[in-house]
Amino acid sequence: MINVNKKMYELGNEGSAIRELFEYGKKRKLEIGDDNVFDFSIGNPSAKVPEKLTKTLKELLDNEDIHSYTSNVGDNKTRENIAKYLSSTYNTYIDKNLIYMTCGASASLFLAFNALVESEDDEIILFAPFFPEYRVFIEKTGAKVVVVDPDYDHFEINFDDLDRKINKNTKAVVINFPNNPTGAIITNKTLEKLSNYLKDKEKQYNKVIYLISDEPYREIIYDGNVCPFVTNYYDDSIVCYSYSKALSLAGERIGYTLVNPKAKEAENVFKAICGAGRSLGFVCAPSLFQKAVGLNQGLLCNINEYKENRDILVNNLTKLGYEFVYPKGAFYLFVKAFENDDIAFSKKAMKHELLLVPSSSFGIKGYVRVSYCVKKEVIINSYDAFKKLKEEYK
Amino acid sequence: MINVNKKMYELGNEGSAIRELFEYGKKRKLEIGDDNVFDFSIGNPSAKVPEKLTKTLKELLDNEDIHSYTSNVGDNKTRENIAKYLSSTYNTYIDKNLIYMTCGASASLFLAFNALVESEDDEIILFAPFFPEYRVFIEKTGAKVVVVDPDYDHFEINFDDLDRKINKNTKAVVINFPNNPTGAIITNKTLEKLSNYLKDKEKQYNKVIYLISDEPYREIIYDGNVCPFVTNYYDDSIVCYSYSKALSLAGERIGYTLVNPKAKEAENVFKAICGAGRSLGFVCAPSLFQKAVGLNQGLLCNINEYKENRDILVNNLTKLGYEFVYPKGAFYLFVKAFENDDIAFSKKAMKHELLLVPSSSFGIKGYVRVSYCVKKEVIINSYDAFKKLKEEYK
Repeated sequence: MINVNKKMYELGNEGSAIRELFEYGKKRKLEIGDDNVFDFSIGNPSAKVPEKLTKTLKELLDNEDIHSYTSNVGDNKTRENIAKYLSSTYNTYIDKNLIYMTCGASASLFLAFNALVESEDDEIILFAPFFPEYRVFIEKTGAKVVVVDPDYDHFEINFDDLDRKINKNTKAVVINFPNNPTGAIITNKTLEKLSNYLKDKEKQYNKVIYLISDEPYREIIYDGNVCPFVTNYYDDSIVCYSYSKALSLAGERIGYTLVNPKAKEAENVFKAICGAGRSLGFVCAPSLFQKAVGLNQGLLCNINEYKENRDILVNNLTKLGYEFVYPKGAFYLFVKAFENDDIAFSKKAMKHELLLVPSSSFGIKGYVRVSYCVKKEVIINSYDAFKKLKEEYK
Repeated sequence: MINVNKKMYELGNEGSAIRELFEYGKKRKLEIGDDNVFDFSIGNPSAKVPEKLTKTLKELLDNEDIHSYTSNVGDNKTRENIAKYLSSTYNTYIDKNLIYMTCGASASLFLAFNALVESEDDEIILFAPFFPEYRVFIEKTGAKVVVVDPDYDHFEINFDDLDRKINKNTKAVVINFPNNPTGAIITNKTLEKLSNYLKDKEKQYNKVIYLISDEPYREIIYDGNVCPFVTNYYDDSIVCYSYSKALSLAGERIGYTLVNPKAKEAENVFKAICGAGRSLGFVCAPSLFQKAVGLNQGLLCNINEYKENRDILVNNLTKLGYEFVYPKGAFYLFVKAFENDDIAFSKKAMKHELLLVPSSSFGIKGYVRVSYCVKKEVIINSYDAFKKLKEEYK
């Protein structure tokens, strides 16, 4: 007999597949030693926190009142610095009064969904493969998740399937580039095409359709690639950001939600985000880290480490005959499993102490995600395990 | 035309009355100077963060991996230390596996409500006066808020009215001692009476009724008073805690929800809390502060400052003919307004630069809350303003 909320119980009981693998990895390392487990399960940044940030944090700790409540929307100076930085870096206009500081990107997204969803008829479109918790957040608001099939060639946007799925109930469309789990980025051209497409749909249905851009990997891009900034392409857009990856602060829960000042209902959306923050008990984002990131706009951990990791992994797996779309950003490689059942494949990998997240978690079959934000040695030493895994399929 | 969630929009548009006054105070101080505004609006702790805690924070900043994700439920060592500390301090048994680290008490409560509420028939009982955001959190889950009238003599429990309000739909009862806004604490005797009463009701309705104890002021108690620990009195209990007040960390959002190991469905409730944390995008409580509080169990800021403030305020207001119930804990004085319309009274106070929160926010008429967690000088210098306010009612 269970006399608690059944849905919450189920979510807590099953856990996220990624988190389960992460917890398994922790246990397994205690059993057989850290060096013997090749834990590619979670996006826990391995690059060091920049020294400058640590210095700022230590200095701030000497300030009186540093730990006090900030305004619900966040520290004023921090919001100002963020608006300035984004406006100049992306040649756009961001209004500090439309920035709401949050406890990381998950909170940012959850606030945005809660602010927008009006009824159970509302639909939110996700592009497969997608970060699995999107579904959990959206379903909690009561809205319906609509999944667009993958663009298997580039993992950008499958417009044919989008056109089949969009309808008058579509409230928002979520994009995430650089992408988790594929490492893909969206080109200017594709974003422009998407924006024009959505503008037409807004006219056709005579309603606002929001484009929510989840951007925790915004700065984790290699080889001189560039990822376009969404407010320059589509007015009714919302940006969800986290410093988790750029500054290796994943556990500190610091980020923001911002509304494009050009959005037709910018102020209404922002007020609803404030209301959502209030009703969800957020109070304010952690004060110390709000102020620390505010003083370090544009600071970035050494992403060369991830590039090196990517290059070694890509070389090794290519040599071994694995297939994947070459990742341009984030720190994930999305590898084709040697069978359609990615869960079975992931289990076989576990026998070789390889922890790979099955793609079913991300809404498609037949792949695994390899998080390469790990020590370089883990990648080098995992070669034999990947080799043995391959050999099982000969 | 508003095409966002109406309820979220309204909550964001109206804002919390306390927060509005806080924001007004900030602006007003810029206009006429910090020393000329007597801002008693918000419970932003004025006592310094203990030096030992700052030392721990600085040391932790040198550790690698300090900013990584912890498990969703929280850092293992921290949960262990909390369980040990509570078990020995309150002579009780707390299980580390039933502690979920959260972003402060508001998050703790919101998780608990989301974990428990199953349907719109569920009712949650609050005792007036109560922290206004309780209502916001509960209504967001879809449950119904049921308010029990005040016990005007001691601001403990009005059992007669509780007996009128409780029924087969009662899912949980929320208590908060030391209390915000009255500063009252609950005696052993009253808690025992409440527990026995609820046990009888559990039998009568053949269901579990949860007692949720919101305890951010647990250690802020004066004059050798003691506040009983709820797990020793009632099995089906949940404790929501925050380090905001005890360690003056209000902006850092760090606390926990714990389930009494003796609860009939302890594990189910805990799993539902985990599911709620997942679906609400909490991910984990801020890592650095999780570890810092874990290493400083039992540490307390200098609450003598609050006692001194209370004594000066109580003397001054008594001298001036104000009435209130003598506060034994927390840092609030709940003062009778000189008219039944507390909002009008609060507005009159503002003319004298006195920022007092009207009691309507807390669910009863005719009082104001004075937050005395301020610099001593603010209290001393506010004497004339309180005098002038009184004189308006001659």
